[in-house]
Amino acid sequence: MEGSKSCSQTDTIGKVVIIAAGPGNRLSNDGRLKPLRRVLGLTLIERVVISCMQAGLSDFVVVTGYKGEFLRRPIERIVRCRCVHIDIVENPDWKKGNGTSLLACRHLLGKPFVLVMCDHLFEPDLLRDLLQAKPSNGDSVLAVDRRVDRVFDIADATKVAIESRRIVAIGKEIETFDAVDTGVFLLTPQIFGALHAAQKKGGYSLSDGVREIVEKRQVLAFDIGEKFWLDVDTPQSLKRAKRVLLSGLTKPSEDGFVSHYINRRLSIKLSGWLSHLPISPHAITVASFAMALAAAFLFAATNTLSAVIGGFLVQISSIIDGCDGEIARLKHCGSRYGAWMDTVLDRYADVAIAAGITYGYWAVHHQPWVWLAGMVALAGFVMPSFCRKEYQLRFLKSLPIDVLTKLTKRDLRLFAIFSGALVGLQFEAILAVGLISHVYVARNLLAQYRRGIPGA
Amino acid sequence: MEGSKSCSQTDTIGKVVIIAAGPGNRLSNDGRLKPLRRVLGLTLIERVVISCMQAGLSDFVVVTGYKGEFLRRPIERIVRCRCVHIDIVENPDWKKGNGTSLLACRHLLGKPFVLVMCDHLFEPDLLRDLLQAKPSNGDSVLAVDRRVDRVFDIADATKVAIESRRIVAIGKEIETFDAVDTGVFLLTPQIFGALHAAQKKGGYSLSDGVREIVEKRQVLAFDIGEKFWLDVDTPQSLKRAKRVLLSGLTKPSEDGFVSHYINRRLSIKLSGWLSHLPISPHAITVASFAMALAAAFLFAATNTLSAVIGGFLVQISSIIDGCDGEIARLKHCGSRYGAWMDTVLDRYADVAIAAGITYGYWAVHHQPWVWLAGMVALAGFVMPSFCRKEYQLRFLKSLPIDVLTKLTKRDLRLFAIFSGALVGLQFEAILAVGLISHVYVARNLLAQYRRGIPGA
Repeated sequence: MEGSKSCSQTDTIGKVVIIAAGPGNRLSNDGRLKPLRRVLGLTLIERVVISCMQAGLSDFVVVTGYKGEFLRRPIERIVRCRCVHIDIVENPDWKKGNGTSLLACRHLLGKPFVLVMCDHLFEPDLLRDLLQAKPSNGDSVLAVDRRVDRVFDIADATKVAIESRRIVAIGKEIETFDAVDTGVFLLTPQIFGALHAAQKKGGYSLSDGVREIVEKRQVLAFDIGEKFWLDVDTPQSLKRAKRVLLSGLTKPSEDGFVSHYINRRLSIKLSGWLSHLPISPHAITVASFAMALAAAFLFAATNTLSAVIGGFLVQISSIIDGCDGEIARLKHCGSRYGAWMDTVLDRYADVAIAAGITYGYWAVHHQPWVWLAGMVALAGFVMPSFCRKEYQLRFLKSLPIDVLTKLTKRDLRLFAIFSGALVGLQFEAILAVGLISHVYVARNLLAQYRRGIPGA
Repeated sequence: MEGSKSCSQTDTIGKVVIIAAGPGNRLSNDGRLKPLRRVLGLTLIERVVISCMQAGLSDFVVVTGYKGEFLRRPIERIVRCRCVHIDIVENPDWKKGNGTSLLACRHLLGKPFVLVMCDHLFEPDLLRDLLQAKPSNGDSVLAVDRRVDRVFDIADATKVAIESRRIVAIGKEIETFDAVDTGVFLLTPQIFGALHAAQKKGGYSLSDGVREIVEKRQVLAFDIGEKFWLDVDTPQSLKRAKRVLLSGLTKPSEDGFVSHYINRRLSIKLSGWLSHLPISPHAITVASFAMALAAAFLFAATNTLSAVIGGFLVQISSIIDGCDGEIARLKHCGSRYGAWMDTVLDRYADVAIAAGITYGYWAVHHQPWVWLAGMVALAGFVMPSFCRKEYQLRFLKSLPIDVLTKLTKRDLRLFAIFSGALVGLQFEAILAVGLISHVYVARNLLAQYRRGIPGA
């Protein structure tokens, strides 16, 4: 059950404590436990675990309370699927306050540790940067967000007042504040003494304990800057979480024109919907491939309707081709194998489409040049990508990306075929796209030669 | 004129001294200076400079003597082409002995330095390992070869006797010896005192000076193991140097069957011959490409003779395709651009050949399936390589190489076309090769999937 990643931070930072003991009534009243609430296919608690893993940590303690017995199996599943270590600690006193949950796992925490909430999503870089904060001995650190005007539910947020990087006041009701508490802490075991002290005064919440060390000026504020975090506490914040996760799927630098303006918008919507189903990225890759093959057969028939249907299939296949990667990133289940297979099958799909369209055109025109032109177009569907990959392997960097590059990408190629098919010009479309592709390769061979790289 | 490579060794090792002052009468009596004697397109002195560069050194002192004025321009050319720093020091006393040549550059050598001879070829690893030897303060190191029974010209060799890693005797005439001197030294400036001491006794050779420090037990022997070096002193040794350099061009692990057993043997002979001409690897790449295009046109014609000629052109193109890389390695003028261009043009050549052969077959049989089959074959000429490169980029390692892999390599593909063309079956040949290629891709996709890489 040891974590699969070794990380230098784990030498100084022991464990990550995830508090998952509260009922979370505000989120839903359908009986589903809050940590098991799914956001785009993954439970809240799994997303929190993954964020910590991506920050380099793999040793967890989950404190359960409310209906804790229902959490056990989902947590065991996370241990199995994500290769992490998780100790489960039950807190029978959870009703008193969340300070008791942290105290419940005191015996497991001998050195500084990270504390997060099961319902606070955050991007891995937030935690990674916090771990770099390196407080002086004995100090704790709280990640805070200074964008108070943009905090989703400011009334419910825990506020902090800061003086020269140290937190001087904390609480939901403090009047003057500089930032809000993100729920991500780097704590030392002295918090346990503070929690006990707070309990003697009748305060059982984590904030009560933190307030004790705040009063001793032992808590540093770590400004998260522009990084994302969200307390998923209400149906509205759940919606917002989905929106933020989906919007993170665009790849402005890599996507071609059609992908950017058309495909990605549709595929992200589709991925949001598909994420709730038990469909693997591999299955989506194969479905997209099968659709392209079906289109190739339709193009080979010589009637107008089948060509139009083929065109639509090609464009739908192109859109779905974005979903496999999106689902893989959304559910953190991507693999290098999947990416490799996707690229190889894409090439075969393109070859099949070119062959189908050429056959369809030849069936009407019966000229041998049709086939030769089709072969040139077919080669054009593979060569730009081949040329780029070979360059990357030789030079250990990518060929420069410009307008011509984007004109040779698959999104535009398939869109051109789709558009052409609508007006019966699918063959002319593959010739045009093929020609542009060969121009691209020739241009790059010449440009790199001129750039004097031969002596490099 | 500073060297283009920075290297940690240059911090402790100052310069490389190359002694190029002697007449070297034994090698030739045609008036050519020995350091300028060419071995497969490069002068002896340039090969010595390149070996040192590849071991990480780029700051040189060349000591000239006999007809030194004729060495100046060739050395300036090396400085320009290889981006190294070279000081030229003239030794008017060269006739007295090679010890005076080292003394002549004394003013440039304030710290430990490497000493090599302009006519001793050696592989870079020999010097690289010697630089790692790290002698204790004041000690010098001499690279020695214990394979005394295999030394090319043992009578003329300088022998050394060794006791517990220290040299205890050195000279051409010593009776008992353990190894021979390779002419590669790591010296400290104390050699200059020793050379002076030797001169007082009437000894003006380098060996006389080295003998002085040998007698003080200050010279360590560095065993070069199985590494290559050669004193190019006679026409016989010049021939041997050529043979060794050419035999280093085979790539047993990468080459396909046809390449290993047929093409490489012929291309190496051809490269040995081409190396003497001012032909760049780029020019060879383009010539091979042009030959393949010509073959494609010949295949498209429907007469038997042109197909046979096409077949021969394909095979010759395949052989020449090996020469560009070989010349680049022989003359140390390879570039990543050249390798990239070669691979991209190879793909285009294959596409053209497939198209030409398909056209030729269709011209006789007039069936549309011929074109479809030709397209499948054409795709098979590109996909295995595409599949491998994509895998390498994703997994940062190569797909495992097995028999099926070697069946999809270009050497075999072109040989199959050549053999097929001899008996009029070039179309059947591309179908067979294309089919094997697709089987290879499918097999790899499945094999990697089964290997459970999805979770990787």
